[in-house]
Amino acid sequence: MTVQPVLIDGQWQESAGTDAFQATSPATKSPLPGQFPVSPWSEVEQALQAADTAFAVVRQWPGERFARFLEAYADAIESRSDPIVASAHQETALPVEPRLKNVELPRTTGQLRQAAAAAREGSWRAATIDTQAGIRAMRGPIGPVAVFGPNNFPCAFNSIAGGDFAAAVAAGNPVIAKGHSSHPETTRLFAEAAHEAAQSTEMPPGFVQLVYRTRHEDGAKLVSHPLIGATAYTGSRQAGLVLKLAADRVGKSVYLELSSINPIVILPGALQERFDEIADEFSASCLMGTGQFCTSPGIVVLKAGEDADRFVAGVAERFGKAPAGTLLSGGVEQNLRAGIVALQRAGAEVVTGNEPADGDRFCFANTLLKVSGDQFLANPHGLQEEAFGNCSLFVIAKDNDQLVRVAEQFEGNLTGGFYTDTAGSDDALHDCIEPVVRQRVGRLLNDKMPTGVAVSPAMNHGGPFPATGHPGFTAVGIPASLTRFAMLQCYDNVRPHRLPTPLADKNPNGRMWRLIDGEWTRSDV
Amino acid sequence: MTVQPVLIDGQWQESAGTDAFQATSPATKSPLPGQFPVSPWSEVEQALQAADTAFAVVRQWPGERFARFLEAYADAIESRSDPIVASAHQETALPVEPRLKNVELPRTTGQLRQAAAAAREGSWRAATIDTQAGIRAMRGPIGPVAVFGPNNFPCAFNSIAGGDFAAAVAAGNPVIAKGHSSHPETTRLFAEAAHEAAQSTEMPPGFVQLVYRTRHEDGAKLVSHPLIGATAYTGSRQAGLVLKLAADRVGKSVYLELSSINPIVILPGALQERFDEIADEFSASCLMGTGQFCTSPGIVVLKAGEDADRFVAGVAERFGKAPAGTLLSGGVEQNLRAGIVALQRAGAEVVTGNEPADGDRFCFANTLLKVSGDQFLANPHGLQEEAFGNCSLFVIAKDNDQLVRVAEQFEGNLTGGFYTDTAGSDDALHDCIEPVVRQRVGRLLNDKMPTGVAVSPAMNHGGPFPATGHPGFTAVGIPASLTRFAMLQCYDNVRPHRLPTPLADKNPNGRMWRLIDGEWTRSDV
Repeated sequence: MTVQPVLIDGQWQESAGTDAFQATSPATKSPLPGQFPVSPWSEVEQALQAADTAFAVVRQWPGERFARFLEAYADAIESRSDPIVASAHQETALPVEPRLKNVELPRTTGQLRQAAAAAREGSWRAATIDTQAGIRAMRGPIGPVAVFGPNNFPCAFNSIAGGDFAAAVAAGNPVIAKGHSSHPETTRLFAEAAHEAAQSTEMPPGFVQLVYRTRHEDGAKLVSHPLIGATAYTGSRQAGLVLKLAADRVGKSVYLELSSINPIVILPGALQERFDEIADEFSASCLMGTGQFCTSPGIVVLKAGEDADRFVAGVAERFGKAPAGTLLSGGVEQNLRAGIVALQRAGAEVVTGNEPADGDRFCFANTLLKVSGDQFLANPHGLQEEAFGNCSLFVIAKDNDQLVRVAEQFEGNLTGGFYTDTAGSDDALHDCIEPVVRQRVGRLLNDKMPTGVAVSPAMNHGGPFPATGHPGFTAVGIPASLTRFAMLQCYDNVRPHRLPTPLADKNPNGRMWRLIDGEWTRSDV
Repeated sequence: MTVQPVLIDGQWQESAGTDAFQATSPATKSPLPGQFPVSPWSEVEQALQAADTAFAVVRQWPGERFARFLEAYADAIESRSDPIVASAHQETALPVEPRLKNVELPRTTGQLRQAAAAAREGSWRAATIDTQAGIRAMRGPIGPVAVFGPNNFPCAFNSIAGGDFAAAVAAGNPVIAKGHSSHPETTRLFAEAAHEAAQSTEMPPGFVQLVYRTRHEDGAKLVSHPLIGATAYTGSRQAGLVLKLAADRVGKSVYLELSSINPIVILPGALQERFDEIADEFSASCLMGTGQFCTSPGIVVLKAGEDADRFVAGVAERFGKAPAGTLLSGGVEQNLRAGIVALQRAGAEVVTGNEPADGDRFCFANTLLKVSGDQFLANPHGLQEEAFGNCSLFVIAKDNDQLVRVAEQFEGNLTGGFYTDTAGSDDALHDCIEPVVRQRVGRLLNDKMPTGVAVSPAMNHGGPFPATGHPGFTAVGIPASLTRFAMLQCYDNVRPHRLPTPLADKNPNGRMWRLIDGEWTRSDV
């Protein structure tokens, strides 16, 4: 069987690698046809050189050029949406509808177009002009960006099509995509569309490149290479921390989206007031996508009592009735099982599930665990291990004080939420816990489950370590996500004809907001 | 002799430390009177706990409260400016005029007042509101900030009064200041003013705290402690990298301003056109403050030829004629001597200086070194070692091509600059080198020396590693410097009465810029 070529320096070229891999169908556990190469370091280095050359060409291009590429790419994706969706379904077992076709792919092209609009408009640069001092500054591109995509969004977070890719390009940087090994064919189809769009919009050859897999040590070499500008990584904590260590050591920017268990605190009044509604909402959120979302609610804190018991039983019933979804891969199933064992060892008891599910596919029964507040406080670290998949842990605190103390042990998370009653009986307790949760999460929710990450300028898909590597940045939400792939570039006394257009006296498009002499304006200097 | 107390939890308390130290007069090499404690870890931990308690109190205070403190503090500094300036002069030997009294202290109070204005106005938060999605986000405070001040700005970068302090407070965070051991009495006087201002403006006790010195391992524990929000450090590369490693490992934000040699490329036309002017400018900039600026021009690249030879000789003459200034400390003198030895070992030859200067004080002769482009390219790393002080290295490239190749070897720097002629003969060569330098420096200059860092919103006092730890942030320039001490806080479906005021429908002061539904505006929702 032929091994698929890699996309390097504007060419689909045969990989120099001697190893190859195949994806596996999660629905049948059988290997899928395509053979994909493991790229050797020499190939990664070739990509770095080509990206560096491309960067020299595009470094001062106006946002318009990147916008055109991103839009052409979105069009190219749409023109081959059927094969992309079919492939993503085959490689991930995620449903075609209502997910890949009508949610995730439109989200993907929508992100590319939003990023294009942000690049064209330019306010994300925060161009700042001090006419008296003769100093001007803006966010400028940082250089070639390595994007490591995750397994759970084969389209919207695909390394060569997703949110990080769109943001890195919109900020003016070439991208070296490192595909996820569980959906290489989907990635290949995206890369074909990207390559076509790059050619039709006259991007330089090394602007968009793809390798499918590298050895782990070569990943670490890539993110810490002198020619790399920054890295975006979404995936497991363990692999992410290896990259972070390598990048940090040499001062390279690295943006990680690691594990998150997204704590939810349901206060007693809410439970009493909206028992069924919340149980439905929670179960749907937790089992959606078989729990394989970064923002899946993995831990729920309740106050002990009859309502809490009833809620646990009610959710257990829902979990039991709902079919166990197919997991993304054998690795995900293995890690889920291991995570559940680890939580049990840390003191959690099984309420429902924790058994193989039906069928010759990657799956596991919907699993609900519970633990007392005392037990949680005795081993807060062990009980916050992520069991990625259709599983959640309920923590039953004995009183209000313990609710607060449990929250104080929360690690950094992408999200955290509260359910409170509408009459106000929960308000005092909420106000005690809110400050504790606020500083530990990126996005704070009220009366809403955390799954469903809107692509909104106000979104924060980020949060304190270990959810991410830096609490000041978001991976979703345009234009904020662009700022990760920028450096602050200041021009002091630089001759006017040498200034980049966003810092020229004349506003380059009449729409870009700039801070001129202390006032935000769209006017010229 | 009594050991000075530390400022912890709103009290000047006796240190629990058993070790103490004294500052040394750089002008006489004799010890100065005050005894200052080395704080044990228990004391640092007490400060962390107090800062955490203070943070819980101020977490959602409006910017106005921090502004009031910062302004009261600026006033309190001014009311005791004479003793502060006298002490700073005694401890650093920096001139009273024209430096400490009429430049650095006004800059310090100016920064505090600018930070106050930014906190009050609030646009630095980048408040973003999506009314349709019900999502709102802003930069919020990150928690207690540790500030490690450097030796070379006893006022404007003092750990408890300088730019990092002002930015951290304006962003709404308590500060734990770790003073620099070379000017403890100056730091004590600032802390007295800060404490007075904190009391008069009713800040909670642990909001502003000071320890003078800790053991190195306790510094690393401080920056990586669970209760710390972020760290700002300005100082030597070696000590900074130890802190960075400790903070990075646990995902704590750390902003470092490390060494920088600030390359300047003087192109042939400029040299021919403005020989004397540039030689004067360069000599003044390099010897100003005895070269003890982060932005002192430590490396100059010239193209070989008669003009270059004449320029080297002209600068050497100016260096020889100018008195050798007093250095900040024995450590600085020692490091300068060691740096010059290291540069010689790497191939540099002495043009002038490299000998003890007159007087029983910390000093060394103004020293100019030179090296050929060939030699530089043979050991670019060794020839970019910082020799902090009144010393610079000229690199003589043999041709245009080598000029570019030398620039390609520049490490990350705070600044980099070009001198070109006005007739345009240098333009083609400039345009070849500019892209290379642009990506390696935070602030790019034309026809201007890098010393003199204006406190402008457009300033970037930052740059790629190893100049700093992240090229997206600046330590000088308000409001941008505040963003280092913030986390992105998103509110999703949060009930209106629970939103922080900057995200409420009503613009809290009518002046804060907010991005509402895609439009920057000062209006209410």
